[in-house]
Amino acid sequence: MRLATSQDSRLLVIEQENAIDVTAALGLENTGSGGPLLALLESGAQHRLTQLDLSELPLLPLADVQLAAPLPRPGKIVGAPVNYLDHKIEMSEQKTIAEYGVFLKANSSVIGPGDDIRLPYSDMRTDQEGELGIVIGRTARNVSAADALDYVFGYSPILDITVRSTEDRSTRKSFDTFSPMGPWITTADTAGNADALDLTCWVGGEERQRTNTRELIFSIADLVAYTSHVMTLHPGDVIASGTPAGVGPIVAGHRVVVEIEGLGRLDVGVSDEGAIRYADRPGATRNA
Amino acid sequence: MRLATSQDSRLLVIEQENAIDVTAALGLENTGSGGPLLALLESGAQHRLTQLDLSELPLLPLADVQLAAPLPRPGKIVGAPVNYLDHKIEMSEQKTIAEYGVFLKANSSVIGPGDDIRLPYSDMRTDQEGELGIVIGRTARNVSAADALDYVFGYSPILDITVRSTEDRSTRKSFDTFSPMGPWITTADTAGNADALDLTCWVGGEERQRTNTRELIFSIADLVAYTSHVMTLHPGDVIASGTPAGVGPIVAGHRVVVEIEGLGRLDVGVSDEGAIRYADRPGATRNA
Repeated sequence: MRLATSQDSRLLVIEQENAIDVTAALGLENTGSGGPLLALLESGAQHRLTQLDLSELPLLPLADVQLAAPLPRPGKIVGAPVNYLDHKIEMSEQKTIAEYGVFLKANSSVIGPGDDIRLPYSDMRTDQEGELGIVIGRTARNVSAADALDYVFGYSPILDITVRSTEDRSTRKSFDTFSPMGPWITTADTAGNADALDLTCWVGGEERQRTNTRELIFSIADLVAYTSHVMTLHPGDVIASGTPAGVGPIVAGHRVVVEIEGLGRLDVGVSDEGAIRYADRPGATRNA
Repeated sequence: MRLATSQDSRLLVIEQENAIDVTAALGLENTGSGGPLLALLESGAQHRLTQLDLSELPLLPLADVQLAAPLPRPGKIVGAPVNYLDHKIEMSEQKTIAEYGVFLKANSSVIGPGDDIRLPYSDMRTDQEGELGIVIGRTARNVSAADALDYVFGYSPILDITVRSTEDRSTRKSFDTFSPMGPWITTADTAGNADALDLTCWVGGEERQRTNTRELIFSIADLVAYTSHVMTLHPGDVIASGTPAGVGPIVAGHRVVVEIEGLGRLDVGVSDEGAIRYADRPGATRNA
């Protein structure tokens, strides 16, 4: 099953070229800033999705729907630093995720398909990082790698946009618009083996990244197990699983596209509206 | 006004030795995992607090109430690295918050007064960091330092517990129980000038940290302004403003106490139940 959220906060099941509106059938009207899918996952009622008679529900052409991010404000967004060997080499990193563990991105940084990444600094490099996103389905605390996939609800393409500044990793990856996600979430049963999916990322029409998720240093199960050893994962939390080699600068006017086999194609723009010089950021001159 | 949350999710106004239950009067029953204060702040109805006739509401002795964290699961917890000069010196840091910006802590790491910090690793140093916590009152995006205090709802003592491992700062500070907060939130009007408050932190009965918030490198207004330049701040988001010199190891059996002038005294325990060796963490042997 593929689940999308429209810009007017409807929860949609995507079937081929159609979108079936399941919002009313699941009682997910007016679910607030987290959106209808987060409300469904938090209530633990996702099994109700499979009990619906979709043929009875309102259907419209997917082309007529304005999609938003499937989870516009997750409870947490976790990131995986240096989780592909070829990215370790390109960044001259001495360590991998095994030593670094995970980092956090602000849950206020999500945008959806067709939205624009906004560059915060006019004179500081900002990179694309195409990744497989993992959506948690039920509360996970200290789960083993053997059990970890039972806690996964589904998967989505995601971009982990990153400024190469002096700032902490959390800041460099948390600017508003820095976590494009979508176009939809594919449930784990539909996605199949998510540790063997081709991932490709293009910037400005040129291919920059190409890998298969079997190249992950921490597999999806490893990543969920490790993260749940650090922090309790709740339904709707998102883990960006790390990026392969090929990260590079994005500039205003670029299209950034990430496609994962069977999970869809996420396409966003880049804008420099509101960008400031790095030296002009608040507090930059507070040198103690 | 001082606002606390009980372990049964009641919102309480604290007046001297009494707790006045305002939950029903404000329609904050059954507000879910975020608790009643977050629900109030997210609804934008905090002005209703000042319109209540507290003399009409149920009152009980504070000593009879089991307090929880005032915000058991905030939307975000932001941290401030190296925001006191004496802490920069003790950590041999070359940089301060002006270069590092902010980091994020998992919102699943909050505990309340009387709870126990749980040490994750039996063979890795874990430190206390006593801090002033800032609670955001309304949505803040790109606000100036001159306007920033208008976006602050109130303040609370907070501890930023930190493991000294090889892991990313977000991981080292995000283990479950690593953000003790409370005993209550003091609204900004009651707190007065929060940039001039004495802060003291004791571990195992011995004083470890003593400062005044006037020593902050980024003042409270600087910190809110800078953070809002990176990420949209929402009502109920929490910023831990950084720690002064005197951080040091905590061990099972310690009491960790942080007191801030006019804001109350937060007292938590330390347990090593469930601690594992660092080498035994999930994925530790995945050396690529």
